[in-house]
Amino acid sequence: MEHTVKKLVILGSTGSIGSQTLDIVRAFPDRFEIIGLCNGFNTPLFKDQIDEFKPLFINTLGEIESGYGGAKKAPVEDIVALPEADLIVAGTVGCAGMSSTIAALEAGKAVALANKEVIVMSGPLLLEAARAHGGTILTVDSEPSAIWQCLAGEVSRPSRLIITASGGAFRDETWDSLGAVTPEQALDHPTWTMGKKITIDSATLMNKAFEVIESRWLFDVPFERIDVTIHRQSIVHSMVEFSDGTLKAQLGPTNMGQVIQYALFYPERQVNNHLPKLDAIAMGSLTFEDMDRSLYPCFELAMEYGKKRGTYPAVLAGADEAAVELFLKGSIRFTQIPDIVSRTLAVHMPIIEPSLSDIVDAAGWASEITLAEGSSSTTTGWARF
Amino acid sequence: MEHTVKKLVILGSTGSIGSQTLDIVRAFPDRFEIIGLCNGFNTPLFKDQIDEFKPLFINTLGEIESGYGGAKKAPVEDIVALPEADLIVAGTVGCAGMSSTIAALEAGKAVALANKEVIVMSGPLLLEAARAHGGTILTVDSEPSAIWQCLAGEVSRPSRLIITASGGAFRDETWDSLGAVTPEQALDHPTWTMGKKITIDSATLMNKAFEVIESRWLFDVPFERIDVTIHRQSIVHSMVEFSDGTLKAQLGPTNMGQVIQYALFYPERQVNNHLPKLDAIAMGSLTFEDMDRSLYPCFELAMEYGKKRGTYPAVLAGADEAAVELFLKGSIRFTQIPDIVSRTLAVHMPIIEPSLSDIVDAAGWASEITLAEGSSSTTTGWARF
Repeated sequence: MEHTVKKLVILGSTGSIGSQTLDIVRAFPDRFEIIGLCNGFNTPLFKDQIDEFKPLFINTLGEIESGYGGAKKAPVEDIVALPEADLIVAGTVGCAGMSSTIAALEAGKAVALANKEVIVMSGPLLLEAARAHGGTILTVDSEPSAIWQCLAGEVSRPSRLIITASGGAFRDETWDSLGAVTPEQALDHPTWTMGKKITIDSATLMNKAFEVIESRWLFDVPFERIDVTIHRQSIVHSMVEFSDGTLKAQLGPTNMGQVIQYALFYPERQVNNHLPKLDAIAMGSLTFEDMDRSLYPCFELAMEYGKKRGTYPAVLAGADEAAVELFLKGSIRFTQIPDIVSRTLAVHMPIIEPSLSDIVDAAGWASEITLAEGSSSTTTGWARF
Repeated sequence: MEHTVKKLVILGSTGSIGSQTLDIVRAFPDRFEIIGLCNGFNTPLFKDQIDEFKPLFINTLGEIESGYGGAKKAPVEDIVALPEADLIVAGTVGCAGMSSTIAALEAGKAVALANKEVIVMSGPLLLEAARAHGGTILTVDSEPSAIWQCLAGEVSRPSRLIITASGGAFRDETWDSLGAVTPEQALDHPTWTMGKKITIDSATLMNKAFEVIESRWLFDVPFERIDVTIHRQSIVHSMVEFSDGTLKAQLGPTNMGQVIQYALFYPERQVNNHLPKLDAIAMGSLTFEDMDRSLYPCFELAMEYGKKRGTYPAVLAGADEAAVELFLKGSIRFTQIPDIVSRTLAVHMPIIEPSLSDIVDAAGWASEITLAEGSSSTTTGWARF
């Protein structure tokens, strides 16, 4: 069977999503070609990736000379707009991934987008930019991907999206009992192995709110038709209810490989023996429980501000990113995350009809003010919030 | 929104599927028009249906004069081939529904097929007839419908079909303990309300084997890639595994209304407030258990002969139909159903490359010989098998 070779650019190639994307490329050497790699500071791994995949263009925050391994250095905006690029994998983390995603969509590219913050920050504007330039977003987030898969082939609008939540690392604790938890405890996710930022966001359920917001924009379903259910096994990755009263669910192992691969090969599916499979017969019992939102202050906060227009969602994302960083370095307690994010939101003067650059600026402002406040406080000091 | 009106012919209009189809037509008067109704012997209900839906043509085994309610009597073969007919709903039961289904497919019609025996009897030939004449089969059987829905929009072949089974009326009993069960007990299905034949077939799990055989032909998946799992809640109606190791499931209330409506409106979905909806948040726990096939002699028997080529599957269907009839009228015990079916299969001289009429004949022969043997035996006499 003849296949075309898809030419890929990977943003955040040394991160969790980037590395797993390269694992898939490695498994299908005749289906993909890496033409661009961009990363942050992990220079040793980045050099290994350049040596192995021989991209034409690179961009890095680390110290690598142009021409290393035959790869020319170029601005990220130019790399994502390369005429020969078929798919841009945005494996960046947080608000810093915004401008490269916009650049790719404005170049009319298909973007496999793992960075949900980018959609939370600017859902409607991002989609408008994509529409205007012929760009498309293929989600690389397991719950929205499940919804996308359940919607395949459906000509009628869904009546409800049901996003499943494992409940995170502290699903059997009350919020008030979490004051003393360490970053190590919060990073011990019960079902998924992921990057640090998203694992902390999972523990606070900020991540679940972000998925609701992301799904609202990606699938054009109003917030009041998106529910969250606690599903402890993380086997059903999400469900879609249709107007006839039936549902579809997508199920899989708790592994990002399948999610990435679905976006890379879409609409095809491929055998990949390097990935775990779900054994449906052995899966035993699947449970679904109502989520008591009052137990999760970050979820409530994110839903309140994520629904607002203007720059509020960007400030939410920027402040959360900073708060997670503060928690991971020991500057604030776990339970202070919603408090510090809430304070930043409270002092924000929103722009109601922002441009994309206003949104980037608002997230940057939120991150800075949150970091500044959090760093100037002692843990005890922050306890006042 | 402008809609075309679909012109329907309903075969078996006074049966369980026929009546529920007319309920849906009643709920969407601007979307469907009944141009033909065919039934068996329930004349009072049939007259009511003619009065209400004013078909142009009718066919009945009961006593109704041509011209009743303005409807002309005509042969079933002519009614299903009416040039204006858009969809034929085959709500017939058992082997007698074969010839009308063939006639509809050979007329190039879309057939909403609830009668699984017809596919069990002649899967490959039926599909070949459909292909040759441009006919299509839209399944109206909840498990195959679930698979059909899960395959929507998928361009790659499924790697496995997983058909769910409630386990039937006696799922918590051993087969050997069922010698004395009455038809009333066997008709008390734990999750579904259906016609008598299919409910008894559900209790023996003959029905589940029929669904495996039906799915093998409808979706062109080899038998060794079709599994059955015991799912006591009957909420997940079936699942499809894909080559990438993930799955899709279709979930719904235990109600044939949705299944019929999906075929009637395919590919659209429609709100129908007369149908129950599934509340995904409240569904609690879904369990999946390995099926111990040795507990279900009808399942084993049906899989053995349903896989064979030639006239064996038709004899299986014909003999089962007769055996169920014998059980319902008290001539044989519940546990004798597989024995009597097995005896008929054992004495059958198969035609290896049968025509469709050979298949009809074989099923008729099987039914006759099974009825004759069963009727001539006392219950005690049959205990020797």
